[in-house]
Amino acid sequence: MKGSFREDRQQNISMLTDYYEMTMGNGYLKYFGDKIAYFDAFFRRIPDGGGYAVMAGLESVVDYVSNLRFTGEDIDYLRGQKMFSEEFLEFLRDFKFTCDVWAIPEGTPVFPGEPLVTVRGPIAQAQLLETALLLLVNHQSLIATKASRIVRAADGRAISEFGARRAHGVSSALFAARSAYIAGCANTSNVMAAQEFGIPCSGTMAHSWVQMFDDEYSAFAAYAETYPDACVLLIDTYNVLKSGLPNAIKAFDEVLKPMGKRPLGVRIDSGDIAYLTKKIRARLDAAGYPDCKIVVSNSLDERIIRDTLMQGAQIDFFGVGERLVTSETEPVFGGVYKLCAVENDGEIIPKIKISENPAKITTPYFKQVYRLYERGTGKAIADVVTAYDETIDDTKPYEIFDPVYTWKRKIVTDFTARKLTQRIFDGGKLVYDLPDINEIKNYCAEQIDTLWGEVTRFENPHEYYVDLSQRIWDIKDNILKKEQYNI
Amino acid sequence: MKGSFREDRQQNISMLTDYYEMTMGNGYLKYFGDKIAYFDAFFRRIPDGGGYAVMAGLESVVDYVSNLRFTGEDIDYLRGQKMFSEEFLEFLRDFKFTCDVWAIPEGTPVFPGEPLVTVRGPIAQAQLLETALLLLVNHQSLIATKASRIVRAADGRAISEFGARRAHGVSSALFAARSAYIAGCANTSNVMAAQEFGIPCSGTMAHSWVQMFDDEYSAFAAYAETYPDACVLLIDTYNVLKSGLPNAIKAFDEVLKPMGKRPLGVRIDSGDIAYLTKKIRARLDAAGYPDCKIVVSNSLDERIIRDTLMQGAQIDFFGVGERLVTSETEPVFGGVYKLCAVENDGEIIPKIKISENPAKITTPYFKQVYRLYERGTGKAIADVVTAYDETIDDTKPYEIFDPVYTWKRKIVTDFTARKLTQRIFDGGKLVYDLPDINEIKNYCAEQIDTLWGEVTRFENPHEYYVDLSQRIWDIKDNILKKEQYNI
Repeated sequence: MKGSFREDRQQNISMLTDYYEMTMGNGYLKYFGDKIAYFDAFFRRIPDGGGYAVMAGLESVVDYVSNLRFTGEDIDYLRGQKMFSEEFLEFLRDFKFTCDVWAIPEGTPVFPGEPLVTVRGPIAQAQLLETALLLLVNHQSLIATKASRIVRAADGRAISEFGARRAHGVSSALFAARSAYIAGCANTSNVMAAQEFGIPCSGTMAHSWVQMFDDEYSAFAAYAETYPDACVLLIDTYNVLKSGLPNAIKAFDEVLKPMGKRPLGVRIDSGDIAYLTKKIRARLDAAGYPDCKIVVSNSLDERIIRDTLMQGAQIDFFGVGERLVTSETEPVFGGVYKLCAVENDGEIIPKIKISENPAKITTPYFKQVYRLYERGTGKAIADVVTAYDETIDDTKPYEIFDPVYTWKRKIVTDFTARKLTQRIFDGGKLVYDLPDINEIKNYCAEQIDTLWGEVTRFENPHEYYVDLSQRIWDIKDNILKKEQYNI
Repeated sequence: MKGSFREDRQQNISMLTDYYEMTMGNGYLKYFGDKIAYFDAFFRRIPDGGGYAVMAGLESVVDYVSNLRFTGEDIDYLRGQKMFSEEFLEFLRDFKFTCDVWAIPEGTPVFPGEPLVTVRGPIAQAQLLETALLLLVNHQSLIATKASRIVRAADGRAISEFGARRAHGVSSALFAARSAYIAGCANTSNVMAAQEFGIPCSGTMAHSWVQMFDDEYSAFAAYAETYPDACVLLIDTYNVLKSGLPNAIKAFDEVLKPMGKRPLGVRIDSGDIAYLTKKIRARLDAAGYPDCKIVVSNSLDERIIRDTLMQGAQIDFFGVGERLVTSETEPVFGGVYKLCAVENDGEIIPKIKISENPAKITTPYFKQVYRLYERGTGKAIADVVTAYDETIDDTKPYEIFDPVYTWKRKIVTDFTARKLTQRIFDGGKLVYDLPDINEIKNYCAEQIDTLWGEVTRFENPHEYYVDLSQRIWDIKDNILKKEQYNI
């Protein structure tokens, strides 16, 4: 099995943590022992000024947490830093994950301020997860969010993820392919990701194939001979309209036709897409190949795709690479992990992080998220962040209100309430059935469908409501009033 | 040894390749057998409009190539695609890397158009490397290039790489830390990267440490007690000047002083850096702590660092996270891998990729790169891309010329010529001694020092000369003239 990424994915990345998680952990053990703390992972801004983000990375978090352990080599390394007590090193050596974890499932559209993941456990353990948990959720949610934009821009046309060569390392390429697929891409060019995650694989030829032959026609004829059932020809090595397209049609006529085969497509990777694809479409149709698809690539993103389609470009498939795998226009998903409560003798004490910037003040306490849907249309009305033990009874009217402009109130009737927050680990034991990748993909599409067009709009979307329950609002307000005088 | 990343770094990522490398490979075997081909990896644009890039990723390429092999599981997966001949699957199953590889060493300042890596070998093998080789070199050169900008902006102050939580996956975090260190960062917060690559580790506390205690002073006192020799306090949890700084000074006075210890520093992660650090410096000095350093973080990059320093900010260390690990302002390093020659009965036949955009036309033939240095100053004058068997004799005058405006000519005298291109693999055997990370770091600093200020300038730098030798220019010109009529 060596060589299977499955094994590497199960790899121990326990040491992938910021050093301060260790220096704090060492101190926590000393001052707080097993004291229980609660942390929320959440984000504050949707990339690209979009109306929603797509949650991803949970399966990786489960893998990470399930493999948390420190080797003798790790312990020796840390001892060599001369910062840590033997008690702390022993705690790491005998590390046993006993936290509770809740999360919003992968593929869910999510919004700023709501807890995506909540961890409850002994403070030194719960703190330790911060870096890797954020890294996994931030990266994968970033790419899923970007992919969702690109997929919507293509308006029903298929998107192939082509970005491996410009990804930020091996795991970037792999999990970008997975995140892109979840968010609606049709396939990936990345063989390892396809194999590992069960994603369809796609790819045909590079310019080098054409260059290897004495002339373009020979290259096309050889390819058609070799792949009569999957013949997509790259027609821009020399000149698309003067050379590539006529040679492709000739190969279709002379190689495929006698075999009784139809071409799959032609691809261009340069030039003016709108102009060229209209010409190509007309000539393919005239040559008797109206079923031959046109595939386009070359530094595409949602803006170029929309613009090109508005100009009437004739495109059936897009190959999207570097701008998808790096989320080029905004490559940072700013998820944070903040202490929101501790337990004193079983009582949950809310904790807050104050800031002069009100947007940076955290919401304290142990929380969960509900989504309210309009009964007739199935459309999402608002999310409500409640205390962990609140239920929203959707058989009765429910009042929601803006957490800042609290006079903005609305009584919601005729709705269904769905709890988004799911229990993942119970006392360190995995209690969540990880869904299959295609289930996640379908769920994602279905959930994005519940958002109003005002929310999914590319430019200046409507800001979806993420409200606090009265109880959470009161807890936050009280602690803010109190803390104010503490400074 | 399980759990050591060393093992994972040696992981088999052979399947991390674009599918078209496989479809082409399958066809190459059929049409070309063992025919020898040459590919160059190079880039066309320096990120952020900079004057130079920093080569990185070679050690990873060596690891990748050294571990190239396909498992039975991989072969079965590919067979299941129903695209590949049994001959090709057998070629993969018995895969033996026999290529020659040349490259420019890590840490070298590099420029558009010069071959960073050249691969010579049987076409199906040489083609197969494309995706992973580009991924590794693109990612690591991107981060090294960005880090070099940030390090220069800090003008001698130390930079800590803090970005793991916003990196694009596990290998992104690890290799960003390595690349940043090579390019001049002082240390990393990433424990796994520090352990794996032998980079110094740094980190102290998050806001959660302060929140866990009943009050800020208790948190600081506890930290000072625990780490009297490494006491850096985060002073912006509540209010920097009203609360954080007075509490820090109190902890220095009441906890450290009686122990005969000095504080290392204070850190802020929010607020107006220029304003706050000037106030902090004055008060620390007045309190008898002129040796206490000021550490600043919070979405920094080279632009913010320069601007802040120009305003007289009093900073000793910068923690740089998300904008470094993602190269936020330009997250794509556009390296490409292009066929440049084939062998016919031992004769090297140049190959070119034509484009309507002259910048996209490749330079054919089997090449290497020389750098010419002025003898007195040691400063770099120009790079010259020559044929593989040319030598530049620096005891005689040498004429360089612009490859586009060929009337721009210059006779260089009193110079030394250094061949940048090194042999890495010889017939599949590693013949290059991979340098230690600190050697690479020192070499990088020393080589950046050979660039004139005009080239290292942040805005509108001078475009460093990358010229072609007369022989390479002639080969390219001849083939262009010929190809022109082929279209």
